[in-house]
Order: sequence, then C-alpha cells, then structure tokens
Amino acid sequence: MSDKKNRRIVLASRPTGKPTPENFRFEEAPLPAPAEGQVLLETLYLSLDPYMRGRMSAGRSYAKPVEVGAVMEGGTVARVLASRHADYAVGDIVLSHSGWQTHALSDGAGLRKLDPAAAPISTALGVLGMPGFTAYAGLLTIGRPKAGETVVVAAASGPVGSAVGQIARIKGARAVGIAGGADKCAFVRELGFDAAIDHRAPDFTARLAEACPQGIDVYFENVGGAVWDGVFPLLNDFARIPVCGLIAQYNATGDFPGPDRLPVVMRDVLSKSLTIRGFIQREFTDQRPAFYTEMAQWIADGRVRYREDVVQGLDRAPEAFIGLLEGRNFGKLVIEVAKD
Amino acid sequence: MSDKKNRRIVLASRPTGKPTPENFRFEEAPLPAPAEGQVLLETLYLSLDPYMRGRMSAGRSYAKPVEVGAVMEGGTVARVLASRHADYAVGDIVLSHSGWQTHALSDGAGLRKLDPAAAPISTALGVLGMPGFTAYAGLLTIGRPKAGETVVVAAASGPVGSAVGQIARIKGARAVGIAGGADKCAFVRELGFDAAIDHRAPDFTARLAEACPQGIDVYFENVGGAVWDGVFPLLNDFARIPVCGLIAQYNATGDFPGPDRLPVVMRDVLSKSLTIRGFIQREFTDQRPAFYTEMAQWIADGRVRYREDVVQGLDRAPEAFIGLLEGRNFGKLVIEVAKD
Repeated sequence: MSDKKNRRIVLASRPTGKPTPENFRFEEAPLPAPAEGQVLLETLYLSLDPYMRGRMSAGRSYAKPVEVGAVMEGGTVARVLASRHADYAVGDIVLSHSGWQTHALSDGAGLRKLDPAAAPISTALGVLGMPGFTAYAGLLTIGRPKAGETVVVAAASGPVGSAVGQIARIKGARAVGIAGGADKCAFVRELGFDAAIDHRAPDFTARLAEACPQGIDVYFENVGGAVWDGVFPLLNDFARIPVCGLIAQYNATGDFPGPDRLPVVMRDVLSKSLTIRGFIQREFTDQRPAFYTEMAQWIADGRVRYREDVVQGLDRAPEAFIGLLEGRNFGKLVIEVAKD
Repeated sequence: MSDKKNRRIVLASRPTGKPTPENFRFEEAPLPAPAEGQVLLETLYLSLDPYMRGRMSAGRSYAKPVEVGAVMEGGTVARVLASRHADYAVGDIVLSHSGWQTHALSDGAGLRKLDPAAAPISTALGVLGMPGFTAYAGLLTIGRPKAGETVVVAAASGPVGSAVGQIARIKGARAVGIAGGADKCAFVRELGFDAAIDHRAPDFTARLAEACPQGIDVYFENVGGAVWDGVFPLLNDFARIPVCGLIAQYNATGDFPGPDRLPVVMRDVLSKSLTIRGFIQREFTDQRPAFYTEMAQWIADGRVRYREDVVQGLDRAPEAFIGLLEGRNFGKLVIEVAKD
C-alpha cells in the first residue's frame, strides 16, 4: 500500500479563461475503510482529457460541472487495495472514474475489470478506452468514411485524432492529420497518415488544400478555432462533420469578435448538403463490445498504434492539464499516480 | 392556342442584394416548331420559389446559376400544344421545368404527365410537387419527429412550412409555426398547428419560448436570420435541424457584422449533440413514389391542406418574385401564365 492518506485535488475556484494552478487545491484525508459491498481503490493512472475544462465551468454542458470544493473528475485505472465486494479481490485492476485522487471507495458501479495480460493497463484510458471509442464511434457512425474519400482530423497526434486517422485508413479512406509542430507531424506520418500538416505553419491553409486535392469528405472536429477556417472551404458536397470537441475555444470568455461566420457556414451547409453532428461517446454505448473486439485486433495487427505521454505523480496533474489545453502534451496524457 | 409568340423573361443582370425589376428583361421570339421526338409546350402555371434567388447569382450553389441572357429557370405545369413525341398527345398536361416563358420545346426528358382529375394541376408545383416533397423528405428523413416531440418551422404559411407542420402533426408531434403577421398566423392555426408565432412581434422570442415549454426537438430551417436566434436557445439535446433554405440571408452582400455566432453554435452542437443537416430534395428521389401516395391520401383525408397565391400573367413574375423574398406572398406562389 503506497500511502496511508488519500491525497486529492479539488476544484478551488472556477477559471475565467485559461485555468491556472490557483483553480486547484491539494487536500489530504485519512484513507477510508470500505463498508460492506465496497472496495477501496488505489489509483495507478489518471486520465487527463480536454472535456475536463467543461466540467470546471458552471455553464450547461452534457454533464454536470464539478462543484467547487469537490474532487476533480476523471477516468482512472486502479488496483483493489481492500474489498468487501463479492466481485472484486485485492489486487484486481479496474477501470474506474475515481477522479484526481490517490484513493477512492467504490460500490462497483461503473467499474470494469482489466486483464493486465491483454494490453498495458493504461490503454484503458486511451486507445482502448474513452478516447479510442470516441474516435471509433464518431468516425464510423457519423463520419462514415468510404473508400477513396478524404478524412481530415486535427490534434492528430492525440489519442482521439490518431485513432480517427488510422481507422479511416483501415476503411480505405485517405487520412490527413493536422498537428502542432514538426515532431508531432512526423509522428502522424509514422502512424501511416497520408499527410500531416502543421497548423502553426504560416501557409497552413495552402498546405492543407494541397494535401486534399479531392476536397474533404469527413472532418472530424475536435479543435475548432483557426483549423476550422482552413478546413471549411475544402468541404465537399455531402461532407460529414462529427463534432467531438472544440478545445481551441474552451478557454474563451465573452463574445467572439466579428464578422459573423454563422451565415456563411449555414450557406454552405445548405448549398453543399453538409452534416454537422455533435456527439458524446456515451450515446453509442451499444457499440462498445464491437469496439473492444475490433480495436484490440487492430492493435494486435499493428494497424492501430498509439502514443502515451505519461507524467509522474498526482501533484503534476494541474500543470499537465493546463498544458494539455495548450497542446503541450504529445500523445495520450496520463498521470502515473502510483507504480503498477 | 393562346399566342403566336413565345414571351419569356431572361436574367438581364445579376442582382447585388435584393433583386430589382431591372435584373429581368422581357423578350419575344417566334413560336418554335417541334422536331421529331419533341413536343411544344404551353405554360399554364409557373412556380416561383426562393431557390431561384440562388440561381441569379454566380456564386457556387447546389446547381448552376442561370446565365445572364438566359431564360429564368423554374418549374411549370404545361399543356402539349403540338407533339412529335410518341408518348405525348396534344392536350396532355405535364409537369415540366420550362422556366419563365409562355412556351418551350421538350424532348420529354424530365416531363411527368399529370392527371387533372386526380388533383388541381397547380398542386404539382406545390403540395404535391417539389415544395411538398421537400417538406416530406427533409422532415421525415432528417428531422425524424417522434410522437410528443416539438417541431418548429418558419414560413409556416408557405408551401414547405405548412406541409412540415401538418406532417409533423400526423406523426404525433407538436407543431409550432412561425409566420409574418396576424393573417398568416391565423391561417397556420387553421391548419391545425398547435401554435403560431408572429416573428414580427416585438416579444417574438418570449412567445416562441412560451409555445415550446418542452423545448424544440426538430427545427426545420428554411429562413435563417433572426428566427434562428429565437429558436437556437430552445433546442433540446439531440435536436435535428434539417436546413432547407435561408431566405432571410439570400439577399445579403459582404461580411456579416459581429459578434461571431459560430463558436456559440458549435458549442451547443457539441454540448447538446445537435444535428445540422443541409439538403436538397433531389437527394431523396427514391422516396418520391411513397410521397405521392401518402401525400395524396393525406390531402384526400383532409389531414394536409394547402393554400395557393395565384398571380395572373407572366408579366407580373418579377414583381411577384421580389415580393416572395420579402414574404409578401401568402401561400404557394404560382403565376397563372395561360388559362387552363
């Protein structure tokens, strides 16, 4: 047992614009003992994901915000330290949603046992977890890429984007990835994308157009912002735009300056018969079994590869999360909270 | 035979902003004689529709623009005046796409024979034609209203909007219509809509919210502009927005002033899992047989009613069309070019 206390990070205050370290507070509490029907979990890995920015704000989203003073929410991989639950034994590894803390009690609801022999357990937070499933369900159900079509995705070195492009390739489509900086672009090319474009390049728009000579049939939207403006004119008739995230605008405050782009977008929605469809992976829960089977096979076959950005220690979660919103991570960002 | 000349209206120049009478020019030409395999058609009714505004501009749309100097495009109901085509006899009534002119030759491509005993022939341009089919296909394929859901449509006294609301009711949904002025709103209520809201009312937004106490599940978009701003905050999770027209912005020129509404819309697309889907009815051609059967039955049963705004004489087409873009028509606008 790594610790006799539960260390946790709570939301100290709601950010205005970019989160700062002051929005987070560290607390310690005695390790709780499981009641009948409960397990005590020790967090091994904590997932950091862009959606958490939404939970820090009070505004309406698809989920309730984290209350000020409450533990920051997050997916975790954990080990059972003590069990009074018939289904779990000490030492079991589980996928949980314990949040930003070293330990948590659970009554088993929402837990999923992991087989450490089948895949590295941290992948349950990435390519074989929520981000991978987001890519899978959004691309295949909403994007529906056909062989020969062009699929564009931003944040292409990240856990969602990298899976989107690789699955698009498996389906016979061309995959064009957008990423920030030469290293990330090189990695995206290594993954087998047909092209990788640096959104920081001054001629980004021209390069993107060059990489999409047949236009864009599917734009998997997970960033918004300036990337959208480069993609939008290249959309083909009947293009599909699964909207999974808008990380570029999560920190925005107040009105957005003009001109108003909405009428222009709506004009093309009409004239090109575009589909813009927001989603959250929970909606497609019935596809999870197929996802686990297919994705595990694709990984085993080497057709889907992934990269993790592992940061050591819960204490670094706030700084790592702030960096995530600025694109400073490289691969799926996870905090290694305790050694496996 | 009503005339020995073909009178026609050509596009004289492309409008900047609102079309004016000067954008149109009247011409006369000798009546052509049909060659082998052709028919000579006499236009009885000409349909005027908002999409024609798009054809007057050179900008990209889902169809090619009308060339300057060419006859304005448009759906027509016509009578066969002379025939050298095996399938058509003199006196046959056909649905055609002859444009803004009194006569035209056709080789039969795209013609559809109409049965004057089955329905008033002008309805082939309205409730039993392209506008009715637009409503049917867009609402049922993209909107997919479920019993108890709320469907909102603007231009609700027009040929598309009135059909949308009545079909929504047939499917068990609540129908809320938006129209301009008390007379149109009264008519929309007569059609059986659950509520009709005047978009010119100073408290339009509040009234719309009041008429949609459970929010909006389907917004059939055919106007854009200020109506969108009233509808948008009321959209429910998983709302569907078939985009069929944007008449409020067809005459716009240059940039649209800020603030930029796009990021706000995209934020809700994401947080509410909205679907925004542009379409043109041609895409759903395989549904036409079902449409003709079902819509004819609904009309026979009195479950779908319609209103026509018949203007006498081809000469009045430009002024009637300009009025259409300002909402001055009341019902499906058709020009009676020659007496039936």
